[in-house]
Amino acid sequence: MRLNEAKVAIVGLGLMGGSLALALGNGLCKARIGVARKQETADQATHTGVVDRATTDLQDGVREADIVVLAMPVRAILSSIQEVGTYMRTGALLMDLGSTKAEIVSRMDRLPEHVEAAGGHPMCGKETGGLEQADASLFRGAVFALTPTARTTHNAISLAQEMVEAIGARPLILDAERHDRAVACTSHLPYLLAASLTHVEAEAEEQDPVVGMLAASGFRDTTRLTASEVPMMLDILLTNRQAIEQALGSFERQIARARSLLDDPAALEQWMKEAQCKRREMFG
Amino acid sequence: MRLNEAKVAIVGLGLMGGSLALALGNGLCKARIGVARKQETADQATHTGVVDRATTDLQDGVREADIVVLAMPVRAILSSIQEVGTYMRTGALLMDLGSTKAEIVSRMDRLPEHVEAAGGHPMCGKETGGLEQADASLFRGAVFALTPTARTTHNAISLAQEMVEAIGARPLILDAERHDRAVACTSHLPYLLAASLTHVEAEAEEQDPVVGMLAASGFRDTTRLTASEVPMMLDILLTNRQAIEQALGSFERQIARARSLLDDPAALEQWMKEAQCKRREMFG
Repeated sequence: MRLNEAKVAIVGLGLMGGSLALALGNGLCKARIGVARKQETADQATHTGVVDRATTDLQDGVREADIVVLAMPVRAILSSIQEVGTYMRTGALLMDLGSTKAEIVSRMDRLPEHVEAAGGHPMCGKETGGLEQADASLFRGAVFALTPTARTTHNAISLAQEMVEAIGARPLILDAERHDRAVACTSHLPYLLAASLTHVEAEAEEQDPVVGMLAASGFRDTTRLTASEVPMMLDILLTNRQAIEQALGSFERQIARARSLLDDPAALEQWMKEAQCKRREMFG
Repeated sequence: MRLNEAKVAIVGLGLMGGSLALALGNGLCKARIGVARKQETADQATHTGVVDRATTDLQDGVREADIVVLAMPVRAILSSIQEVGTYMRTGALLMDLGSTKAEIVSRMDRLPEHVEAAGGHPMCGKETGGLEQADASLFRGAVFALTPTARTTHNAISLAQEMVEAIGARPLILDAERHDRAVACTSHLPYLLAASLTHVEAEAEEQDPVVGMLAASGFRDTTRLTASEVPMMLDILLTNRQAIEQALGSFERQIARARSLLDDPAALEQWMKEAQCKRREMFG
């Protein structure tokens, strides 16, 4: 099966699901079916042409699809995989856009035999969620992790890869556990630092209101992830505990090191330069 | 004395000094004299009209000035205050743009009797320094802390305030120690977190190169302060130790709390919502 012959059902029409539907427009696939929790969202998605048809009935939405993409928070994905699998037709491919992969992939491995599956995680997003924020160009240039299950076939991963490339993203195939360890460091740890820093500031501001007046762009950028959608981020934190605790441990060691370097200006300068240099390598 | 009658000498023609000179253009003051370390910078500043005249001779640059502004890294300010004071004419005002204030203000208090002084710190900047980056609008809308010394007169603070308002900034008069405690939390702690996080990522990437491929905009923003100029930031860290160690202590307690909340989803969610709400209050 090729993407342009495939009917794609997208379950969850928020920022990510809506953006995927928009990015698959212009005939990239045969049809785009949206499944929303609320009738209002389903209506909005059809009226604005985000999808070709939308429904609030899960079974009705996914039964004819060749590809089903679960685009909800991680725990909602986990609790619907089994049910969606029973509705899907033989040989159809189940994917998801969840931000942690090990639990999802392990749940996918228990799907009925007639269903194909692969985990997915596009490395992009926006501060604000919702269908109104959906954007056809959201995935362009972004890395899109694809995490096979123990049963994922070559055909399944090829079709997933074709879809990822069609929406302008760069597929990166890797093990779910390896994915989760990496994003604990690059995404979940940064979120916890941002939220902790915001709490530190709030406490300090309670003691002295001038603290808030002296918070400028450096503070704003460092805490930006605090604006992430709470239900989405909560599910992420609760489904990647082990890797997050390891990342927190590494971070606590670095902070202790930074503190001790305050006694050694030359070594502190070297540590600062290494960080500056490393980040320049990553982002120019 | 009013600003439009004042000759202003700016010592240090980097991003901050150059931007101040540009912002004081259009006749806001009587003359703008630049003092640079290198003849090349002095020439560039006069040729591009950033200042009316420039020199590499400190005494020549400041002796006729009514206001002298030290626009160098903090430790360079500290080591030049005494010398600059001996060159200044009676009743002239010495200011600075350094990012920590307690040590500077205490050094200003030991100036010769004939010199007025007040510390200053504009809450703005750019990732990249240098005269080429100078920007007349850099200060617009930014809070500009003014920290009096034990000897600062009403006239001195009025003139400083007039200059701050003339360049479009919002003066905030407060004690140097209070300033330093606040920025330890809103600026120096965020820098140390950004640099520590960058080191954690570098270590993890050495173990597995895929870590770098999965670093996206969240990581980029949280580590943005790592790009700060090292000489400037090093001086800041070394001249605000006590407040920084306190802020690090508060942060370590918050991180420990975050870690323990991973066991309590409802409390974790509440903690995340509080952070989101607090940041929204601050930045909308």
